[in-house]
Amino acid sequence: MHDAEARVLNAIDETWTVNLLAETVRVPSVTGTDAESDLQHRMARLLTEAGMDVDVWKLDLGDLTARPGFPGTEAPRAEGYGVVAVTPGGEGPPALALQGHVDVVPTGDLAKWEGSDPFAARITGGTLHGRGACDMKAGLVANLAVARAIKQAGIELARPLAVHCVISEEDGGLGAFATLDRGHTAEAAVISEPTSGAIITANAGALTFRLEIAGRAAHGATRYEGVNAIEAFWPVFQAIRRLEAERNRDVPELFAGNAMPYPIEIGTVRAGDWASTVPDLLVAEGRLGVRLDEDPAAARAAFEEAVADVADPWLRANPPVVTWPGGQFASGRLPAGHELLDQVGRAVEDTTGARPAQTAAPYGSDLRLYAAGGIPTLHYGPGDVRFAHAPREQVELKELLDVTRALALLAVRRCAAL
Amino acid sequence: MHDAEARVLNAIDETWTVNLLAETVRVPSVTGTDAESDLQHRMARLLTEAGMDVDVWKLDLGDLTARPGFPGTEAPRAEGYGVVAVTPGGEGPPALALQGHVDVVPTGDLAKWEGSDPFAARITGGTLHGRGACDMKAGLVANLAVARAIKQAGIELARPLAVHCVISEEDGGLGAFATLDRGHTAEAAVISEPTSGAIITANAGALTFRLEIAGRAAHGATRYEGVNAIEAFWPVFQAIRRLEAERNRDVPELFAGNAMPYPIEIGTVRAGDWASTVPDLLVAEGRLGVRLDEDPAAARAAFEEAVADVADPWLRANPPVVTWPGGQFASGRLPAGHELLDQVGRAVEDTTGARPAQTAAPYGSDLRLYAAGGIPTLHYGPGDVRFAHAPREQVELKELLDVTRALALLAVRRCAAL
Repeated sequence: MHDAEARVLNAIDETWTVNLLAETVRVPSVTGTDAESDLQHRMARLLTEAGMDVDVWKLDLGDLTARPGFPGTEAPRAEGYGVVAVTPGGEGPPALALQGHVDVVPTGDLAKWEGSDPFAARITGGTLHGRGACDMKAGLVANLAVARAIKQAGIELARPLAVHCVISEEDGGLGAFATLDRGHTAEAAVISEPTSGAIITANAGALTFRLEIAGRAAHGATRYEGVNAIEAFWPVFQAIRRLEAERNRDVPELFAGNAMPYPIEIGTVRAGDWASTVPDLLVAEGRLGVRLDEDPAAARAAFEEAVADVADPWLRANPPVVTWPGGQFASGRLPAGHELLDQVGRAVEDTTGARPAQTAAPYGSDLRLYAAGGIPTLHYGPGDVRFAHAPREQVELKELLDVTRALALLAVRRCAAL
Repeated sequence: MHDAEARVLNAIDETWTVNLLAETVRVPSVTGTDAESDLQHRMARLLTEAGMDVDVWKLDLGDLTARPGFPGTEAPRAEGYGVVAVTPGGEGPPALALQGHVDVVPTGDLAKWEGSDPFAARITGGTLHGRGACDMKAGLVANLAVARAIKQAGIELARPLAVHCVISEEDGGLGAFATLDRGHTAEAAVISEPTSGAIITANAGALTFRLEIAGRAAHGATRYEGVNAIEAFWPVFQAIRRLEAERNRDVPELFAGNAMPYPIEIGTVRAGDWASTVPDLLVAEGRLGVRLDEDPAAARAAFEEAVADVADPWLRANPPVVTWPGGQFASGRLPAGHELLDQVGRAVEDTTGARPAQTAAPYGSDLRLYAAGGIPTLHYGPGDVRFAHAPREQVELKELLDVTRALALLAVRRCAAL
């Protein structure tokens, strides 16, 4: 092992890294909230302490929203910040960017957390618990720990290393969009989203849809005079399940082992405003999986057609309305044969002893924005995505440290430690 | 016709009555809102102008809520007022009370009102449109028009006539409960809820229930790792429809012609807080019809059992939670053979030429509270209940005036005009 490689691995401060993860989980940076900005400012401070040149800028939300390619948002947001740090002194554009998002999804039903505060960051038996633990504060912290270790080890890089911290990944990717829009770039990027030890080189996409199903109001006491929008919704739900089965029939080899790469799911439903009035409107929101390399417009058309085709007299006379109000994630992938896959694989093997598998993920991420912006990108990061967006979210601290080591090695190799 | 009877009918001011209905509909007195109080104060002023002794009091909400027999409420309410007016000079307790509620249900989806403001009180072709038009501002106004006509005709009554204006009928009956609790009484009462020209001598009841159905959260991209609470709800909805069919099999003769006296309906559903998270909780609220003379506790038990018996492995392991948080309307009826039925029938026949039918209503009302408080009570009032709680609610002005005449005749007869 090259001397600088050994030095950077030695310089990784495990206690600092674990403590930072706990502190970071304790910031309840639910997408769109003020805490999202708080955490961005904290990241900027730490990256400055790691000796990097940090660009912190306030997003011009109105301007970004109007740009072509704007990826959509879901959470109302009063403000947002971008944070990009670059090691000083190297030549040319960064040879590598490590990217992470600071926002997390809401907690859901608190009772499902079994009495635990989702933001307490409790550690038991080598596992840290909390909203955001794996999606993706562990990855975010790994990126920072790499930057800090390079500084602590006194390593100078021939080519710059960048760390990108973004907001709004969970509700569409506004943060990544704004980062690229500002001109930040790199020759390749790793997003440290949770990958359970594998390398993810492709993402299915996910398009947020809204469905409005009409009913006809009536007094609950004469409910047969009305049409219950909840009941009217049911055949639509069934049609969605059928469409999902169809769209998951022939899936690319990259998704081998994945039970369903392109799920379609209803995430929220609201209907009615009075217990004894037949509800005249149901509004449902959900996510439509986009197939690898599929044009999102084609996916939208397939969904709209399936909903319009439901054979139900009421729905024929009162067609459901489909709109696409939230995050719009296309699919994306690392170009076939790109060197980054092998480089990450070797860094992992050299630190853990095992060559990681390559796979694809069923969820959309910032990867497709980086890929579309000409930055070859993959995912490699700590945690198991099955805990993401779920109650009792958690991450193994061993995974956090394994990933930190692999990324540190990758960074000094790609950026050529002097 | 007795001289006083002719005089009171002549004294009914049709223009004043119609104008008052329009003005009253324009007060958006949705149950629980401040406008509910505004309308009570307006009623009190008009009843004072009609020469009555008016008791206006502020409800002690905390105290009433803690009383045995408290009928439940649904809307949050910061304050509430009672209004009872009694004609001066007569002997003994009132021989008749005319009762009406000032509160209305929310408007539902505004688009369903076809561009009309639900509180505009537009009149087209003899019909007044607006939320509350028939449920029950027309009846409320009829009661006031009777009081005013007696005053205008200069009629003195041997026995007092009372007018009761109450709040919170729509969300449980707190106003009627408070009125009786304050000691206001009468030998008989007519509630001028909409009856389409018939006399309603019995109400089914209605109990507001809340259902909580558990799911298991997961990232939408791995939705098969979770359980969608919306999907889990569906067999419960079907079980409710089956229970409803069962409970409507053998119905009393009084309900002849009614397609379904005891509906069970889901009025609201809320599930999920994120489009791409599998929702882990669905909360539904609805109304359970109580059979005539059925103990509400027995109705609740039948519902809870039907929900608990749903043969579904997930629901068996994660039992739905049923609570009864809102309005709890028992059934109620006028005692068989009570003279009031015949007296109202004759008053209607003498003013319209036709004897009204007797029937029963599938909805709960304040009737059951008055009946339980020892005041024989029936419904007779303007409007068709099928427009109640529905968009484009409306009332025929002819019905408003027909009812006003019949109630005026009833009042001078029962209270013995001198």
